[in-house]
Amino acid sequence: MTEVLVKDLFSDKHFAEDEIVTLHGWVKTVRGSKRVGFIELSDGSAMKHAQIVMMSDMDNYAEMTKLPISTTIKVTGTVAYTPDAKQPLEIHATAIEVEGASDNDYPLQKKKHSYEYLRTMAHLRPRTNTFYAVFRIRSLAAFAIHQYLQEHGFTYVNTPIITSSDSEGAGEMFRVTTLDMNNLPKNDEGKVDDHEDFFKKETNLTVSGQLPVEAFALALRNVYTFGPAFRAENSHTSRHASEFWMIEPEMAFADLDDIIVTSEELLKYVVSYLLDHAKDELDFLNGAVDENLLDRLHQTINEKFARITYTEAIEELEKAPVKFDVPVSWGLDLQAEHERYLCEQVYNRPTFITDYPKAIKAFYMRDNGDGKTVAAVDMLVPQIGELIGGSQREERQAQLAQKIKDYNLPPEEYEWYLELRKYGETPHSGFGIGFERLLMYVTGMENIRDVIPYPRTPGNAEF
Amino acid sequence: MTEVLVKDLFSDKHFAEDEIVTLHGWVKTVRGSKRVGFIELSDGSAMKHAQIVMMSDMDNYAEMTKLPISTTIKVTGTVAYTPDAKQPLEIHATAIEVEGASDNDYPLQKKKHSYEYLRTMAHLRPRTNTFYAVFRIRSLAAFAIHQYLQEHGFTYVNTPIITSSDSEGAGEMFRVTTLDMNNLPKNDEGKVDDHEDFFKKETNLTVSGQLPVEAFALALRNVYTFGPAFRAENSHTSRHASEFWMIEPEMAFADLDDIIVTSEELLKYVVSYLLDHAKDELDFLNGAVDENLLDRLHQTINEKFARITYTEAIEELEKAPVKFDVPVSWGLDLQAEHERYLCEQVYNRPTFITDYPKAIKAFYMRDNGDGKTVAAVDMLVPQIGELIGGSQREERQAQLAQKIKDYNLPPEEYEWYLELRKYGETPHSGFGIGFERLLMYVTGMENIRDVIPYPRTPGNAEF
Repeated sequence: MTEVLVKDLFSDKHFAEDEIVTLHGWVKTVRGSKRVGFIELSDGSAMKHAQIVMMSDMDNYAEMTKLPISTTIKVTGTVAYTPDAKQPLEIHATAIEVEGASDNDYPLQKKKHSYEYLRTMAHLRPRTNTFYAVFRIRSLAAFAIHQYLQEHGFTYVNTPIITSSDSEGAGEMFRVTTLDMNNLPKNDEGKVDDHEDFFKKETNLTVSGQLPVEAFALALRNVYTFGPAFRAENSHTSRHASEFWMIEPEMAFADLDDIIVTSEELLKYVVSYLLDHAKDELDFLNGAVDENLLDRLHQTINEKFARITYTEAIEELEKAPVKFDVPVSWGLDLQAEHERYLCEQVYNRPTFITDYPKAIKAFYMRDNGDGKTVAAVDMLVPQIGELIGGSQREERQAQLAQKIKDYNLPPEEYEWYLELRKYGETPHSGFGIGFERLLMYVTGMENIRDVIPYPRTPGNAEF
Repeated sequence: MTEVLVKDLFSDKHFAEDEIVTLHGWVKTVRGSKRVGFIELSDGSAMKHAQIVMMSDMDNYAEMTKLPISTTIKVTGTVAYTPDAKQPLEIHATAIEVEGASDNDYPLQKKKHSYEYLRTMAHLRPRTNTFYAVFRIRSLAAFAIHQYLQEHGFTYVNTPIITSSDSEGAGEMFRVTTLDMNNLPKNDEGKVDDHEDFFKKETNLTVSGQLPVEAFALALRNVYTFGPAFRAENSHTSRHASEFWMIEPEMAFADLDDIIVTSEELLKYVVSYLLDHAKDELDFLNGAVDENLLDRLHQTINEKFARITYTEAIEELEKAPVKFDVPVSWGLDLQAEHERYLCEQVYNRPTFITDYPKAIKAFYMRDNGDGKTVAAVDMLVPQIGELIGGSQREERQAQLAQKIKDYNLPPEEYEWYLELRKYGETPHSGFGIGFERLLMYVTGMENIRDVIPYPRTPGNAEF
């Protein structure tokens, strides 16, 4: 008698006809007639379920045909090949034992539920086919990113989550404190005395690991972060969450062209990896969620991405036979509608936009020398809009110091950042990927809340 | 002319004698006599440095022999094999260009600095050999963990960082808020009105992803978290940080024996991976930091770990010819001194202790049925003490509900956790690894602050 996993039944593993096996798993569906019954069994090891066939002469047959969904059972049976049936391999049960009961009021019965409803039970939704597929893909995509970067000599760096630096204008921040909110210590001016807080100053949750990881690029060359980031914005869109994960590769001795090449390669690598390792999951999502998913993924790996400058993008948008909600002119911070028009209507594939106006980009981006633009790049993808944003960093100490002044940033907070330049003005570049945006792209899910195990949005931090 | 990396010079890559190559990198040391000069060049791609030889007839020879440490340079030169010299492959420079200047007051000159001093410059210390090695190993260890778990069918789950649940007694928590601390909204009782906060309730930083990840094990079978966790304790030891990373594998259909097997295999896999992929780094640390490091790592992969029960451990400690600071009797929560005595003096290898007293362990651990102990396990390792802690989880709904009552936990917060049992009482087990403890074990570094890129401890959240 061999212990097997459901995934073994769909693998190259050989089973003899009539071989006796046992499986442990969860009842997904059950039905029975007078003579014969069927259980679809999942054990979490595969997207697919095992087909368990029960004959009415089995001891507890009547009871087993009435098992509640999600009951934990142990099945002993024989392997049966059914070349003409839909399911290539069945288990003919000789004995079924209940290992853990489930209640009859299990809320996720076979019928289709809305994503909104399923969000209220984040602890149970991984048991549905859709979320099983999404969260398997989340895991595989994360690993593919690590694998690509490690194979290309990148060092993984865990930049801090709790930070005392401000957000460089990247967004609103969450305060982190151990002060007793009902009994706050005050200073002489009657304000909260931050010196009494845990870190003896005000601290917040990070919005980006880029600045701290730059220090590591200037020692270890190619580095990356992969960790959570936070935005305390009160936005209720399908594309924003208060807590999300980002990947931020940073490369020394690299310019804008280098990060364009690397980010295109990385995205193609992840998509190829998923096509190889998540075939069942992608097939399922293509059928149940987004019928263009597989086409989009194949196109992503097969075509070279488009590349235009911001100025060319504005020209394209100005001659577009479309009325945008936000009118277009040079200097505009492109909105999702513009981004999607460009990569969906004009280029019909992932598209790099380079050389953005200085005025709409962060202080650390390298001036192009035309007085107007910086060496920035965004990658836009169909369905999503901006997926990746990057830039060559200003490595020249004098120029960076001037930018910090121009942007009215507190100079004492950027002393260490300037010191990275003081001791070797090394050209370097990097980019950031919103992991959940990537997941929406590779799963077809349209709401960021549905690619995060336990989403956090304004007013929602359940579980 | 080929662009090469320093690591290529030490690899299997073939270079022709006199092949012309260029490298970009940082000056680590420089010295020059009248006739000949030498630069040790790092480009971040390897622990080792390239030996650059300059002859005095090079155009800017005099200037190049006086370059400040950390200057960014581009070297063009020819490959020279020196079979009898210490360095197997040198670059004979034909031209050196300064790509980015460095100041003469670079604070990390060749001489040895204390770790305390280096902590004050977390942005520069990765440029030292010791921290280069430590942070390379941190990255490789993280990847090895992902690789082992992915190869064994585990799904990576990102459990939430911001949580509204309490800490299950695991430790003090950091509050996360967007309330204006100088103008707090109050409720009718004059207390802070948490309903006005960002998530409409009090939220904190997670101390563990275990409970939320259990929900995923009960759908995806084998799962794991790998993310940051937080403790707001005012402890100033060399083993505690306020922000650290944890790995928490959780396995459905698994008992205590299964997690003992998996955790031993996982640790051995990581150590083997490092011995294969971080040879230069480990050799360096064995020479510079901990002369027992390589012996310890080889022993870790070659010996089967010891395994005893808590009761046996107490017997060993009671007959120990040592006076402990904390006296030993059954029921004691073992301290580092006891843990280290057991794995260093008695068993001299990693040691599992199983079946701890119920009273000193968490509510979710499965009762053994003897009325006294639970199915818990700790893995103790030499130098560190506790590295891994795990347990079989209480999967029986009634028993778990009783435990929640016995521990005086707020039942409404554990409703969802009980529902995981209500719908299929599946046996499952899991364990947690403190990633930084693991790194101390595999690097020989004795202070947790020296294995974290930007450590956070009470009073310290710089950068």
